Amino acid sequence: MNKYLKKWGKLIKETALRSSVGIIYMSLVIAAILLGREYVYALLSAMALITVYEIVNMEFKRDALWKKLIYSFVGGILWILLFFVSVKVFLVSLFVLFFLWFFTYAVLLKKEESVFASSYYMFFFLLVYVLVGLYIGIDIYVSKGKMFFLSLFLMVSTFDVFSYAGGKTMGKTKLVPTISPGKTWEGFITGWLALTIAEVIFWLLGLWKVEPYTLGISVLLLAPVFLTGDLVESVVKRKADVKDSGFIIPGHGGIWDRIDSTIASFYIMWLLIYIEQVVQNGLL
Amino acid sequence: MNKYLKKWGKLIKETALRSSVGIIYMSLVIAAILLGREYVYALLSAMALITVYEIVNMEFKRDALWKKLIYSFVGGILWILLFFVSVKVFLVSLFVLFFLWFFTYAVLLKKEESVFASSYYMFFFLLVYVLVGLYIGIDIYVSKGKMFFLSLFLMVSTFDVFSYAGGKTMGKTKLVPTISPGKTWEGFITGWLALTIAEVIFWLLGLWKVEPYTLGISVLLLAPVFLTGDLVESVVKRKADVKDSGFIIPGHGGIWDRIDSTIASFYIMWLLIYIEQVVQNGLL
Repeated sequence: MNKYLKKWGKLIKETALRSSVGIIYMSLVIAAILLGREYVYALLSAMALITVYEIVNMEFKRDALWKKLIYSFVGGILWILLFFVSVKVFLVSLFVLFFLWFFTYAVLLKKEESVFASSYYMFFFLLVYVLVGLYIGIDIYVSKGKMFFLSLFLMVSTFDVFSYAGGKTMGKTKLVPTISPGKTWEGFITGWLALTIAEVIFWLLGLWKVEPYTLGISVLLLAPVFLTGDLVESVVKRKADVKDSGFIIPGHGGIWDRIDSTIASFYIMWLLIYIEQVVQNGLL
Repeated sequence: MNKYLKKWGKLIKETALRSSVGIIYMSLVIAAILLGREYVYALLSAMALITVYEIVNMEFKRDALWKKLIYSFVGGILWILLFFVSVKVFLVSLFVLFFLWFFTYAVLLKKEESVFASSYYMFFFLLVYVLVGLYIGIDIYVSKGKMFFLSLFLMVSTFDVFSYAGGKTMGKTKLVPTISPGKTWEGFITGWLALTIAEVIFWLLGLWKVEPYTLGISVLLLAPVFLTGDLVESVVKRKADVKDSGFIIPGHGGIWDRIDSTIASFYIMWLLIYIEQVVQNGLL
């Protein structure tokens, strides 16, 4: 009996922490989106810089602080190039910096073992993944407007909340035990159903402005993509053998943990919007 | 005495094979560049597709042939998107395919250990590196003309031939023993000197059309970048524990082994040309 109470006590405490963090996060997001373009840019930039710092802390957790700061600084420079210049300049600069790092370590410092370490290649891969992911969010915001952008964030939250609730109350069949032991098929399906309802409501209200076929495709794909974005972050965290991706919110993962599904949703929605435009106007 | 003869015999045989492969390769390159734009596009596309196949064979050497063909096919599709559509569509599609792969393996096939394998992340990283590298070669060709493009290939060959010759005749101090045991500082410096002479001659002839300050920077940076491009390929090969990157030319590595320095040179020259344009015309 005592044990039972303890279990429920822990669950309530966990849910309360989770909810307050979620509410603070969503308040910031909603405020930025309603306040206008500059605030959205600032929000995405803040997400980009903090996530880069978190990735650096995962991939190079044993390195000295000054090294971590240099790697984070490089990530910051790359975000600025992506944001103010172009994807091409961003990518070319990324690989030129990669050469600079490679030459310095292998030839000048004679630390040949470093250039064999997977964490560096992983770091460059994740830089492209996270920075480009947040950057194309801007395209979605600009082309579809603030209410569409807001709907997407609300849909991610809906999926998160209902997957969690469904998993905690009905969860039995583990989904991906070695990657994320808390996730169950029951939770995932609950999240998917809630997401579908939210999506259809937003569509009927005219906030989620997409063609009917895009609605159909996104009902099918968004939930698996949200889940995948979350799992990618878990795998990276586990590969790096750290528990939390971040440092800002104690006991609650990091910023990347918050925005992992959002980043993934930007990719799939950007592509669906692009296909919509090609269907309507042809290529070019 | 016999041993001495044997050593020279081996060296001559090796040099003869190396030279004939080099001559065939350079004849193809020169022919394509002189024949015109479509041939250059075909050449770069062929390089892209074969290199992708080689990378697949390195990263997934233990996989079944049909899997290797699917991965190569994905690389081919990505090249087409990059070539005919845009860098953005290429990158977004790459990550959407990454999600598709991730979800299929982790959730549907229950092969969770696969999504922890570094080789997949390495594969996606290398796809971006090699495909974008060859793609920006087109920009260099278009903006600077065929003679400039040809000069760059000739400069890579000059560096290769003289590094090799310098290393074989004077080589003593190993450069990066664990990555590429045959490379020496003496060879590298010989290659660098020969490259500098070739570069200045091409510049004086008006083929290497760059501003004097770009000439200065490229004299400083091209040789280290050529070397680094080569070493990146060696590290990837060694990490994957294979001897040759390719299958087309027996005993002589693969196509990637041939074009590793070229890809690296495209990155640095694209950036230097971009900076030149910004200096002349301002941003935008």
